[in-house]
Amino acid sequence: MKKINVALVGHKFMGRTHTHAITDAPIFFDLGVEINKKIICANEDSVFDVAKRWGWEKAVLDWREIIEDKEIDSVSIAAPSKVHAEIAIAAAKAGKHVFCEKPLALDMEDAEAMVKAVEEAGVVNMVGFNFRRVPALCLAKQLIEEGVLGELYHFRAIWSQDWLTDPKFPIAWRLKKALAGYGTHGDLGAHLIDIARFLVGDIDEVCCVQKTFNKMRPVAVFEDGLYAEAGEDMAEVDVDDASQMLATFKDKNMMAYFESTRNGTGHKNQNRIEVAGSKGAIIWDEEKLNELEYYNDGDPAHVRGFRRVMVGEAIHPYMANWFPVGHIIGYGDTFVNEYYDYFTAIKNGEGVTPNFRDGLMVQKVLDAAEQSAIERKWKKVQY
Amino acid sequence: MKKINVALVGHKFMGRTHTHAITDAPIFFDLGVEINKKIICANEDSVFDVAKRWGWEKAVLDWREIIEDKEIDSVSIAAPSKVHAEIAIAAAKAGKHVFCEKPLALDMEDAEAMVKAVEEAGVVNMVGFNFRRVPALCLAKQLIEEGVLGELYHFRAIWSQDWLTDPKFPIAWRLKKALAGYGTHGDLGAHLIDIARFLVGDIDEVCCVQKTFNKMRPVAVFEDGLYAEAGEDMAEVDVDDASQMLATFKDKNMMAYFESTRNGTGHKNQNRIEVAGSKGAIIWDEEKLNELEYYNDGDPAHVRGFRRVMVGEAIHPYMANWFPVGHIIGYGDTFVNEYYDYFTAIKNGEGVTPNFRDGLMVQKVLDAAEQSAIERKWKKVQY
Amino acid sequence: MKKINVALVGHKFMGRTHTHAITDAPIFFDLGVEINKKIICANEDSVFDVAKRWGWEKAVLDWREIIEDKEIDSVSIAAPSKVHAEIAIAAAKAGKHVFCEKPLALDMEDAEAMVKAVEEAGVVNMVGFNFRRVPALCLAKQLIEEGVLGELYHFRAIWSQDWLTDPKFPIAWRLKKALAGYGTHGDLGAHLIDIARFLVGDIDEVCCVQKTFNKMRPVAVFEDGLYAEAGEDMAEVDVDDASQMLATFKDKNMMAYFESTRNGTGHKNQNRIEVAGSKGAIIWDEEKLNELEYYNDGDPAHVRGFRRVMVGEAIHPYMANWFPVGHIIGYGDTFVNEYYDYFTAIKNGEGVTPNFRDGLMVQKVLDAAEQSAIERKWKKVQY
Amino acid sequence: MKKINVALVGHKFMGRTHTHAITDAPIFFDLGVEINKKIICANEDSVFDVAKRWGWEKAVLDWREIIEDKEIDSVSIAAPSKVHAEIAIAAAKAGKHVFCEKPLALDMEDAEAMVKAVEEAGVVNMVGFNFRRVPALCLAKQLIEEGVLGELYHFRAIWSQDWLTDPKFPIAWRLKKALAGYGTHGDLGAHLIDIARFLVGDIDEVCCVQKTFNKMRPVAVFEDGLYAEAGEDMAEVDVDDASQMLATFKDKNMMAYFESTRNGTGHKNQNRIEVAGSKGAIIWDEEKLNELEYYNDGDPAHVRGFRRVMVGEAIHPYMANWFPVGHIIGYGDTFVNEYYDYFTAIKNGEGVTPNFRDGLMVQKVLDAAEQSAIERKWKKVQY
Repeated sequence: MKKINVALVGHKFMGRTHTHAITDAPIFFDLGVEINKKIICANEDSVFDVAKRWGWEKAVLDWREIIEDKEIDSVSIAAPSKVHAEIAIAAAKAGKHVFCEKPLALDMEDAEAMVKAVEEAGVVNMVGFNFRRVPALCLAKQLIEEGVLGELYHFRAIWSQDWLTDPKFPIAWRLKKALAGYGTHGDLGAHLIDIARFLVGDIDEVCCVQKTFNKMRPVAVFEDGLYAEAGEDMAEVDVDDASQMLATFKDKNMMAYFESTRNGTGHKNQNRIEVAGSKGAIIWDEEKLNELEYYNDGDPAHVRGFRRVMVGEAIHPYMANWFPVGHIIGYGDTFVNEYYDYFTAIKNGEGVTPNFRDGLMVQKVLDAAEQSAIERKWKKVQY
Repeated sequence: MKKINVALVGHKFMGRTHTHAITDAPIFFDLGVEINKKIICANEDSVFDVAKRWGWEKAVLDWREIIEDKEIDSVSIAAPSKVHAEIAIAAAKAGKHVFCEKPLALDMEDAEAMVKAVEEAGVVNMVGFNFRRVPALCLAKQLIEEGVLGELYHFRAIWSQDWLTDPKFPIAWRLKKALAGYGTHGDLGAHLIDIARFLVGDIDEVCCVQKTFNKMRPVAVFEDGLYAEAGEDMAEVDVDDASQMLATFKDKNMMAYFESTRNGTGHKNQNRIEVAGSKGAIIWDEEKLNELEYYNDGDPAHVRGFRRVMVGEAIHPYMANWFPVGHIIGYGDTFVNEYYDYFTAIKNGEGVTPNFRDGLMVQKVLDAAEQSAIERKWKKVQY
Repeated sequence: MKKINVALVGHKFMGRTHTHAITDAPIFFDLGVEINKKIICANEDSVFDVAKRWGWEKAVLDWREIIEDKEIDSVSIAAPSKVHAEIAIAAAKAGKHVFCEKPLALDMEDAEAMVKAVEEAGVVNMVGFNFRRVPALCLAKQLIEEGVLGELYHFRAIWSQDWLTDPKFPIAWRLKKALAGYGTHGDLGAHLIDIARFLVGDIDEVCCVQKTFNKMRPVAVFEDGLYAEAGEDMAEVDVDDASQMLATFKDKNMMAYFESTRNGTGHKNQNRIEVAGSKGAIIWDEEKLNELEYYNDGDPAHVRGFRRVMVGEAIHPYMANWFPVGHIIGYGDTFVNEYYDYFTAIKNGEGVTPNFRDGLMVQKVLDAAEQSAIERKWKKVQY
Repeated sequence: MKKINVALVGHKFMGRTHTHAITDAPIFFDLGVEINKKIICANEDSVFDVAKRWGWEKAVLDWREIIEDKEIDSVSIAAPSKVHAEIAIAAAKAGKHVFCEKPLALDMEDAEAMVKAVEEAGVVNMVGFNFRRVPALCLAKQLIEEGVLGELYHFRAIWSQDWLTDPKFPIAWRLKKALAGYGTHGDLGAHLIDIARFLVGDIDEVCCVQKTFNKMRPVAVFEDGLYAEAGEDMAEVDVDDASQMLATFKDKNMMAYFESTRNGTGHKNQNRIEVAGSKGAIIWDEEKLNELEYYNDGDPAHVRGFRRVMVGEAIHPYMANWFPVGHIIGYGDTFVNEYYDYFTAIKNGEGVTPNFRDGLMVQKVLDAAEQSAIERKWKKVQY
C-alpha cells in the first residue's frame, strides 16, 4: 500500500487537534494509503515528551529538519501564525504537500507568496477552514447547489463568544496585534467569510465597523505559573473586540451581514449561519454542530416549518463513516474529515479545497473590511 | 365612578384589535373608571353591522361627527396611515385624548404638526408601539434599568417575515409607496427602533441599505371578490422588501444592528431582540411572546447559561391580571395592556408613553436611514 | 338577527375567562347571531361591581333566578365544581343550553345525572375541555384523521407544573379532597385524557400510581387579607401531587403514558403531547401554544426532521379569524374559539363536542385510574 | 514510565470506537502511563488489514492467544454479547484487567460468574456504560450530590429512536432474541437504568410493559453484498420494540418512569433524562450531548427559568482536556473519557465504576422488568 509520511509543526492546542485528526483519519476512514506519524516539531523541549504520548516517531526543535528530511511527504503547520509563511514556502519548495492552519498569513504579501510557492511546486495545499467539513454545512451547500433554496436573498453569519465580556478579563496575546495579527474579525470573521464563499460565492463590497469595548485591560498576575488574579497594571488592547459588516456578493441580488464578537454575553460559541432563498432556507449553529434547520417553501401550506435535521444518516456527507444517527460527532472530528480529504487528494494526485488560494481570497475580504472600518465607508474587495 | 366615552376610527384588522382591547381592558383590569364604547367610524356601510357585533353604541361614516360630539373623551385612530394626521389634530384641538396607531404619519411635517397639536392641547396622547406592553420586554427593560446587564455592548434586532418570499406573490397596497408610505423598514423597522429607544435610548448615527428583491410582481386576478391567481400583468414594487441598518446610540459605547425583511424565508414573524452587556444579556422573540431568555454572568461558573423565563408570574409586569404562569397571553392582549395604561393616564390626568413625540423620534431615525440608503453612507439622525 | 341571551355563574378567575370569551366571540367571529350578556351570578356582593366592569346587564346572588328567567337561552357554569350538577340539571330541565366548566362533576353519580338531564332535554351541552380549541391540536387531529401519521404507536402526555415544589408552599383548597374533589390527576389529568380521546380514541385499561410528596403543609398566615407567611400549624394534603398512568387504547395496538404533576420543578405549565405513528409524528406543548412540531417520514431521507409549524395561517383551524401568522393567540383565546362553536351549535340547533357525555367518559377513566392506584394493578375502564 | 499493554477483541463498530478511545486517551489526557496497542482480535481475516489501519501491532483470530500472552495487561471486549462471559472470565483468571462492553452478559448466571471472576482475581474491571462519562451528566450528578436539587421528586428517562418505524424495515440480528439477547429494553433501557443508578440510586420495584408493534418483518434481499430491498419472505421479531416502566427507588420518596423505543418516529436518538427536586431540576438529552438544562428554584422569582448550560468550561468534568467551550465533543469522545479513568485506575491500582457489579445490578432490574411485563404486575428487584 502507498504511504504518506507526515510531519507536524506545533504541539499546543492546535497541534493536538491535528495529531488527533491525523491519527483518527485511518481509524474512521478506509484511506487506501498508510499514514505514518513521523516527526513533530516545536521549539520547546516539552515536545519530546509530547511526541511519545501522541504517537509521533520523532520530535525535533527546528522545523528545518523536517524540510530537509527527504522521507517526509506532507507538512502540517499548526504553529503561531507569524511562522506560517516561512515554513509553508520552504515545504512547498522542497516538494512537500502542505496543510496550513488559518489564518494563512499575517499580511497579504506573505499570503500571495505562499500561494505562488505551492502553485509553482504543484503540491497539494490546504488551509484549515474546518467548517467546510461539518457534515451539516456540507448538506447546506448541497441543497443550495441543487437549487433547493431557489434564488438566494439573505446570508447572515453571526458568531458570538463571550470570553471578553468581563472588563476585568486580563490582557492576552490574542488581544495584541503584534502577536495575533488580527482581532475578532480576523479570527472568527475569517471563518465566516470562508463559509460565505463555500455556500454562496465571492464577496463584492463591504461596509464594516469595528469596536474595542474595553481598551485597557489588567495585566494578569501569576503565581506558580498559574493565573492568580487581575493585577493593577493595565495594558492596551489594540485589536477589535467585535466587528459588524454589511456586504454584497458578486453577481448576486443578495443582502449579507457578518458579525463577530467576543463580547456576546451568554453565548459560548454561537456561530450561526442563515441563508434564505425564494424556495427555502437553512440555519446552522456551531453549538448544534450536527443539526441543520431546513425550510422547504414547497411543503403543503398547513405543515410548513423549519425542520430540525439530525445530520448523521449514512447518506449525509462523511457520516457513513461515523456513529449511528444521533450519536453526534464533535469539533475535533471535523478535522478528521479534513484529513480524510487531504490524504485522499495526495493519494490521488488531485487538488483539494479550501486551498491556499481560498485562504488568500478570505484575506482580501478582511483587508477591504479593515479599510472600510477605518474610512467608515463602503469598499470594493480588490481581487 | 368617572367614565371615559370612547370613539374609534377604523373597522378592519386594526379596528378589531382596538375594539378587543377597549372591551377587554375593564374585564382584565380594575380600571377604576367606566369605559363606554360610544362610536365607531368607517367610510363603508359595513360599519353599521360591525358596530352591532362589536358592541359599539353607534356607527358613523364621517369621523368629523366624532370630533363634534361633545360627549366623546377619547379617539382611537386605527384607520389608514394617510388620515392619521388630519383626525388626530382635529381631535386634539377639540380637547379629546388620542390614541393613534403607528406609523404616526406619512411624513415628518405631518408628524411634527401632530405632536404640536397634542402638546398644545394638553391631551393624553399615545402611539401604538404595542411591544412596550409585552410583559417580557417590560421585564427586559426593568433588568436593564436596574443595571443587571451592566455596561451595554450589543443591541441586535432582526425581524423576519416571509410573505414575499415567492416571486409570484401578487402586488399589494403595502408594496406601493403612495398607499403604504413606507416599505418594510417603515412597517417593521419602526417597531424595532421604538423597542431600541425603549430598552436603550436614542439612536445617533445610522448606515442603512435597502433592497427590493423582486421589483415586478404579478397583478392578482380576482374571481367573485376572492384572489384567484397571479395574473399576467406585472406591477412595480416601489418600497423596500428588506432593510439592514448599522447604528450607534447617543452617549453609549455600543454596536447596534437592525434588520427587517419580508423575504426571511421560513420565519413567519421572528422578531428577535438581543441585548448584551458586561454583566448579563437578554434575548426575546415575538413568536415566543411570553418568554424572556436571560443570562446572568454572576451565576456560579459551572451553571451559567441563558435561562428561559416564562413571563407569567404575578410579579411580572401586567401579569397579575392575566392567567396563571404558562397559560400564555397573545398578541391581541398586548393591546389590552396598552389601553390599561392609556385609560389610567386619562383617569389620573397624567402622561403616558410612547406618546406622539416618541412617534416623531422614530420617524426621524427612519428618515435618516432612508437618506443613508440613498447616499450609501453613514448619516447622523437630526433631532 | 337571531339572538342568544346568556347567563354566567361564577365571577372569579374562570368567570372572567368566560366573560372574555363570550364578549370576544362576536368580535373575532361573524356568528350570525346576536349575543346578549344578560345575567352574571355569584354568591358575593362583589358581583354587582364586577357585572358593571365586565359588561353584564344584571347581577344576581342566587343562580335560581337565572333558571327562572324565561329570557335566558344559555347558562355558562364557571362556579366551584361541587355546584356544577345542581345548576346544570336545573338549567337543562328549564330548557336552557348549558356550557359547564370541567370537571363535569365531583362523582360519577352526578355526572351521569347531568348527562341524562341534558340528553333528555335535548339542549346543547358542552364541557370546558378547551384544548380541543387550540388550533395546533386541531391541526394534529386533522393530520391523524387523514392518516398522515399512519398506524399509531405511541401516545405520551406529560403535564408538569411546579407550584408545589417548595415543601413550605401552604395548604390550599385545591389540596383538600372535600373542596377540590380531585387532586392533580383530576385537574390536569382530566384534560390529558380528553386530549387523548380527541386525538386517538377511548382508553381501555390503565395502570396508575399516585403520590403526595409532601403530606403535611403549613397553614398560611394572612395579614390584611393577603398571604403573609407559612405559619407553624400544619395541615394534611389528601389529594395527589402527581400521578403516573400507563394505558392502552380500545382496538389500537398502541402504548400510552400519562403523567401530571405539580412538583415538576422548573416547568411552569409544560403540557406536552406526543403522538408517533408509522408514517409521522407530532409534538405539542401548551407553553408553545401556537406551534405544532410535525415529522413526516415520507420526506426525502437527507432532509427529514421535526418541522416547527407556526399554526397561524388562514388555512389553519380558527386562525383565519385571528391575527396574521406569528402574531400568537393566548390561552384565553381558546375559550373564544370554544364559544364560537358553542354559539354556532345553538344557532344551528346542532350538537357540539366535547359534550357532557365526553365529560362522563373522562371521569370513567379517572375512576378506573384511582382504583388502579389503590390496588396497584391494571384496571379496565368500565364503559 | 509505567506502561499498559492493551488487547482488544472486536473489529466492527464497537471495536473501532474502542480503538479510537484507546488511541486518543493519551492524546487528550496526560495519563502518566504509556499505552501500547498490542493485539486486536476478531474471527475474520479482515482483522489483519484493520489492525494495520488502526495502529495495532498485531492481529489474531483466536482470543485465547491474548489470554495466553503474558505481556498483555488489559483486555477490552467489544465483541458480540454472547462471548463476553467466556473471554472476560478467562482474562480475569489470567490476571488481566478487563473492560467489557454492555450488556455485561446474556443471562444472570453468566453475569454473576463474571463478577465473581474479576472480584476474585482483583483486577480492574469496567462495563461500558459510557454515559457516566458525558460531562453534562457528570455535572448533573455533582449538582444532585451537593444537594442543589434538594429532595428528589421525579426521575424520567425516555429514549426514542425511530429506525423500526417503517413496518417494511427488514428483520435484523438485533430483532432476534437468540442473537441479541435482549430487545430495546435490554439495549437502550439498560443504559437508562445505569444512568438512574448513577444519578439517584438503586431501583426497588418496577411495573413494566413491552410491545412488539410489528411482529413480522420482511427478510432483506441483498445484491452484491448490499441491501437491495425488503423481500417477500417474512420473519418473526421476538424481542420488544418498545418498553415502558414505572419504578420506585430504594429509600426514596420518588416517582420514576423509563421508556425505550425504536418506534419513536422522528426522534433519531432522543435520550432524555429529567430529574426534579424540591430546590431545582435538570434535563439532559443525548442529541444535545454537551448541554445541561438546570433550574434553580432559589433564583430571584422574576428571573427563574431553565438555564441552558454549555458544558465545556475548564471547570466542568473532563472538559479542561478538550476544546474551548462551545467547541463540542462527540459520542466517541465519551469513550476517551472512559479510558482515561480506566487506565488511571490501572495505573493507581484502584477500582473504577461502573464495574462488573454495576453491570450485574442493571441486569437484575432488567430481569425484574421482563418478569413484570409477563405477569403484568409490579415486581420487586431481587438484589
